[in-house]
This record gives sequence, structure tokens and C-alpha cells, in this order.
Amino acid sequence: MVSESIIKEISIKTDSKILLLVLDGVGGLPQDGETEMERAKTPNLDNLASRSICGLTDAIGYGITPGSGPSHLALFGYDPVKYIIGRGVLEALGIGVELTPKDMAARGNFATMDKRGIIVDRRAGRIPTEKNREICALLGKKIEKIKGVKVFIRPGKEHRFVVIFRGDGLNGPVSDADPQKNGEKAKPARALSSKAKKTEEVTNSFIKKATEVLKSQHPANTVLLRGISKVPRIPSMGELFNLSPAAIATYPMYKGLARLVGMEVLLTGESIEDELRTLKENFGKYDFFYLHIKKTDSSGEDGNLEKKVKAIEEVDRFIPEILNLKFDVIVITSDHSTPSLLKSHSWHPNPFLLHSKFIRVDGTKRFTERECSSGGLGRFPAVNAMPLMLANGLKLKKFGA
Amino acid sequence: MVSESIIKEISIKTDSKILLLVLDGVGGLPQDGETEMERAKTPNLDNLASRSICGLTDAIGYGITPGSGPSHLALFGYDPVKYIIGRGVLEALGIGVELTPKDMAARGNFATMDKRGIIVDRRAGRIPTEKNREICALLGKKIEKIKGVKVFIRPGKEHRFVVIFRGDGLNGPVSDADPQKNGEKAKPARALSSKAKKTEEVTNSFIKKATEVLKSQHPANTVLLRGISKVPRIPSMGELFNLSPAAIATYPMYKGLARLVGMEVLLTGESIEDELRTLKENFGKYDFFYLHIKKTDSSGEDGNLEKKVKAIEEVDRFIPEILNLKFDVIVITSDHSTPSLLKSHSWHPNPFLLHSKFIRVDGTKRFTERECSSGGLGRFPAVNAMPLMLANGLKLKKFGA
Repeated sequence: MVSESIIKEISIKTDSKILLLVLDGVGGLPQDGETEMERAKTPNLDNLASRSICGLTDAIGYGITPGSGPSHLALFGYDPVKYIIGRGVLEALGIGVELTPKDMAARGNFATMDKRGIIVDRRAGRIPTEKNREICALLGKKIEKIKGVKVFIRPGKEHRFVVIFRGDGLNGPVSDADPQKNGEKAKPARALSSKAKKTEEVTNSFIKKATEVLKSQHPANTVLLRGISKVPRIPSMGELFNLSPAAIATYPMYKGLARLVGMEVLLTGESIEDELRTLKENFGKYDFFYLHIKKTDSSGEDGNLEKKVKAIEEVDRFIPEILNLKFDVIVITSDHSTPSLLKSHSWHPNPFLLHSKFIRVDGTKRFTERECSSGGLGRFPAVNAMPLMLANGLKLKKFGA
Repeated sequence: MVSESIIKEISIKTDSKILLLVLDGVGGLPQDGETEMERAKTPNLDNLASRSICGLTDAIGYGITPGSGPSHLALFGYDPVKYIIGRGVLEALGIGVELTPKDMAARGNFATMDKRGIIVDRRAGRIPTEKNREICALLGKKIEKIKGVKVFIRPGKEHRFVVIFRGDGLNGPVSDADPQKNGEKAKPARALSSKAKKTEEVTNSFIKKATEVLKSQHPANTVLLRGISKVPRIPSMGELFNLSPAAIATYPMYKGLARLVGMEVLLTGESIEDELRTLKENFGKYDFFYLHIKKTDSSGEDGNLEKKVKAIEEVDRFIPEILNLKFDVIVITSDHSTPSLLKSHSWHPNPFLLHSKFIRVDGTKRFTERECSSGGLGRFPAVNAMPLMLANGLKLKKFGA
């Protein structure tokens, strides 16, 4: 991996336009001999692959299943092991909360505590989402500030919520305020460094006040907090790569990740068609587009092979329209694999396709995992995608004299 | 390479069972167009390869020929450049000495010194092993302790022996007490840091006393010591990878290496059949098995191509029995190559085969070096074998949120 400082030193502004099309979780595993990509009819992707150079990427390394945070950071050109995005921050991004550098975010669970202070159900019987919204509103009204720190509470699904503490002097790391299993005593957060003392105090005071407010709300009579974390300081893509980048995504988490690295997040609708319209409308305004397709991942997470095949085929139908825009560089890949067989993210490498005027076209005949595994780019860390895209857009000067 | 601390953080205990089958030195070089593996008739390995995913590994890097220590550490999931096993320690393991953290081990040579203190023969005319044993016994009786440090002497073959100093305050690094060539003056050990002062004193005092005892034993009238070293502190496989690992090997060195990383070394016999019986008998008790086959290497070291081909064919006959055990994950590979053509370890990458339910089977038709070179896993550092095996055993959680 070439360090960010080197890329920063040699990147230049040019008129060329780059598209990074992320088919979330598109890589899979064979079932009855064929993966989802192999099963899908994808004449347009296959035709493009035959005029491109392909390969396989690993977000983190052999055998490592990445979360969405690190896998996207890698694709955006950032060392995914250096910039750690905490669970609280990711959950906040996931429900569309915009975070500032003063914020500490935590993932919360409503839970059930008995009289002796034992957590008997870490999920409060999975209360209905409607009830969750009600309690969050109540907590928001009763707990607006703690020690000068503003408190925001946002409901998620069932027993899940996010709390944001906004104020000066909040730092990590602090341990989870969560016993991790039922039948154990409630556990306060603990500062893991002296800088984190104030966060510890605010967190534990919040838990105490919330438990007070929730006294009559059994089974949701207390809260557990974990992944208490701050937005990592990440230099922007403008700063590092001299790009004016825009993001088009339908899910809040991916918009949030894009915002973290300084992309402009464009308003769009819910469908791939909406996303494509947004792309066309904004084509003139930016030189880098991150276009995120969620459907390929969610069908994999459901273990629904047929639905994933259909999602891939749907993407394929939009390829001619994308090509019509005449990007100088197109990369089509995914952040991680989500095999229907595993119903979850997996460690398998991602198919990667690079199209530009300046490539050594390889013999890849289809855009599939196995065709890509013998592609001309070989197997490489996903973090190299950014220098590759920049180079193909003639946006990188020579390194060294 | 993903750091050990990351793997440690995400590894979990599950019921799945992993087999790492090491065919020592199995990779070779073509002679009359074919390598030993290509020449061997291996229907079972080939059939397994056609249902697996293959690749090539490097223990250290392109062009680097590894010793058995680093090449095994890499396969066990440890950075082979970070954990250095000294020559003395490796030799001690090789003759079956169990070392404690208080031990300093050195490889010794009986040598011939003339009246002026010049080493005229670094191997004492390669005295017979029988004579070696006799002198070692004599030395052991005469030199039991030096400055409170216990001394153990163990004979090897011909002029070779191992000495172990056991006591408090022994640290490295110290230089070799060996002029490295004939015709030079005997050379004392020298402490290379202030912590190593006591080791320097004990080492040089031992050489002086031994030379005194050996006065009448010409040509073995003095000793040279090198690779004076301590067992490196290596976190165990249990600690790092949450495994309960067992080792089955016929040679002391491999048992010693396995013990270094916290494997349980199982009692077994001398043949592959014995090793397999041990595997079957203990299948229920561990979740990771390292099974070491020595024959493939020793025939290569002898430069005996036909014998190496036969050794590979012998291994092949045991494959169906191994498959019958129904491991969740099987890896078959080697630690380094030992081409008959070179009669020694070499830098050529190792064939690697991975079998599990969660692989993208590639088009590999035979288990040979050249077939593996176009396998779906590509070419990768051997240290990645461990995260790959753990992932395929579903023993790794997601990295990052």
C-alpha cells in the first residue's frame, strides 16, 4: 500500500471524470456449482468486462470479514486499519444523524433490569418500534443536557436506539456500559484513558437518569450503551486526492460514510433509477462519483439467492445508460462479499472491474468472481483502487525524479 | 498481513475442526520437464484439488529461502520476521530438549585447537557420533554448574552438540564464540548489550572449563558455540486464535516448534500410518491439528528424485482416510520447497490447497506447483494461511462496524 501522504503529494486536478460503482456485497459463493453472479444474465456487464481489466480485492486481508465502515474506507483510498469507525458512530450514520467533531455517539439497547440490578433481558423483549419511538421522545424531553453536554436520542428498530452527546471535552476511549449477556449486573462505562473521564461521567449519568425516567416502562426499564465513540479525524478526499467528490446512495449509512471523507451527498430517491437520474443531473458538477447499490447486499443477507440474482440483473440493465455518460474511468466492484449461503458479510475477495482508455485489456469474459480471479489486475488490497482510478484519470504525477 | 492483535480481537471458539497437513519441502523444480509432484501419481490429491481452491505461498518473500523455524511460524500464523528463533534453540528443539524461559541454548561444535590457540579444524575431523556421546557424558559430569547456572550438554551427530544454560539473569544478544573458519584464533563470546553480560561470562567460562576437560581428547580438544539464544516469547495459539491445537510429528524439531506456539504434542510412532492413527484417536479432543510429514523433505535433501516421488505417492494413499474424518477445513501445503535438483531448502513458493464448504472452487486439476500457480487464491504470504483457515471454520468475527 502506498501511503496517503505520497498520493497527496502527487495528485493533481484534471477534467477527467471517475465513477466508482459499488454493488454492495455482490460477491458470493457457489451453490449447485454457481455463484449468484455466475447465475445472473448480465450481457452488459460481461461485454464491459471483455473490454476492461479485472481482478479481485481484499478490504482488510485474507480471511478477514470487513464491516461496512472499514470496507468503504478502503475503497475510498483510506487505510481501513488506521481509521477506526466506532459502532456508535456507524449506527448514528446508519439512521441519518449528521455528526460534528464535538459528538460522542453510542449504540443503545432498551433492556430489562430486575430489582437487584441484574440485566435479565438485554433487548427488553424486543419492544415494538412504535413503543421505542415513544420512549425516545420521552427521554429526549426529560434529559436535554448533562453537565453542559447536549443529549440527543434517536430511535432505531425494536429495542435499538442511538444517543449522541455533544459538548466540549468529550473524548474516548471508554468501555461499553453493557454486561454483554443476560443474568449479569448492569455495568457502568469506564474511562480507558484520563482524557475520557468526562465521557465516562456523562455516559453513566445519562444511564442513571434514563433508568429513573423509565421506571414505569417495564420491560424497557433501563438502557445499555456500547461502541461509545467519536467521529475519527479523516482528511477529506479533496485534501488528499484533489477531487471534488459526490455520493449517491439510498441508505443513510453509506451517505454518512461518504460525508465522513468529505463527499458531497446528493439528494436522490429510493430506486436505482432514481440514483441514475441523480448521477446524470449532476454529471457536470463533480469529478468523482461514488454510486452505491444496496439491493445486492440485502438479498444476500436474507439468504435469498434468486433475489440476489435478480438484483444483479437489474443493475446490468442500467449499464448502457452509465456508459453513455462517457466517464473517463469506471470501476465496478463491491465493498465485501455477502454470499446467500452465509447470509452475512464474508471474507471472500471482491470482483473488480476497471474501464478506461489506458488499460491492458485482459481476457475476462464475464463479470464474475472466478473470471476476475484470473484477471489482469490480480488480487490486491482494495485501498489500491483509489490510486488506480486516479492514475487512469491522469490525476497522478510521477513519483520521484 | 493483518496484525496478530486484530486476529486476536475477532477470533472466537466454535466446534469446527481444522487440519493443517504439512508435506515438508514438497515443492520442487522440473527435471526433464517435470517436478516431483508432477511426476508422482496422486489420484486422491488431484481429485481433492479439483474440489478445492488452490494457490501458492511464500513463507518470507520472493527469493527468500526459509529455515524450518520461520517457515513453520508463518504457517502457524506468526510473523516470521518478528519472532526470531535462534540457531541454538532450534538445534535444542531438534534433538528433543524441552526449553524453559530461563534457558539459553547454543549449538556446539567439537573442534581442534593448536598450541597457539588457533582453530585448525572447526569439526574436529568429524569425530564419530559414538565418541561425541562419550565426550558429552564426560563434560556433563565435570561441568554441572557455572556461577549458579545449571549446564546441560546433549550430543548430536558427529561433531555437533547442544549446550543449555539454565538460570536467572541470562539474556541475549551475545556474539558467536566461533571464528567461522579454520586458521583463525579461537574467539570468545561477547555481550552485545549490557543485559547480556552474565551470558557472556557463563559462555566463556564454559568454553574454558570444557577445553580444560578435553585436553587429552585431541582432535576434539575444544568447543565452539554459536546461535546462543533464548526461546522467543510467543503468545500461544490458544491465546491469539482461541484454538485448542494439537501437533502430530515424527521429528523432534517440529514437535518443538509446535510446543513453542502452545500446541499439545501428541505421542505417535515413526510412520505416516502411525501419525494417522494418532490423528484418528485424538480427533474429538482438539479443534486444530498440525500433521507433519517429513519424508517429502528428506528425500529432496538427499537429491533423490525417485524417492521423493514415492514419498508423495505414499501421502496420496492416505488422503481418503483423512477425508473420512470430515474436517470442516483442510489445508495441504508445505513449509518451504526442497527440490531434489538443489538438495536443500529453496525459495520457491509452496503449493497450497484449501478445502471447506465456503470456497469458490477454482479450476485446479492437479495438486502441483504449476497448477496451484493459477489457482483462485493467487500467491500470498504463508502467514495468511491462519486467518484463511479460521475464516473457513467460521472462527472469525467481522472486523469493524
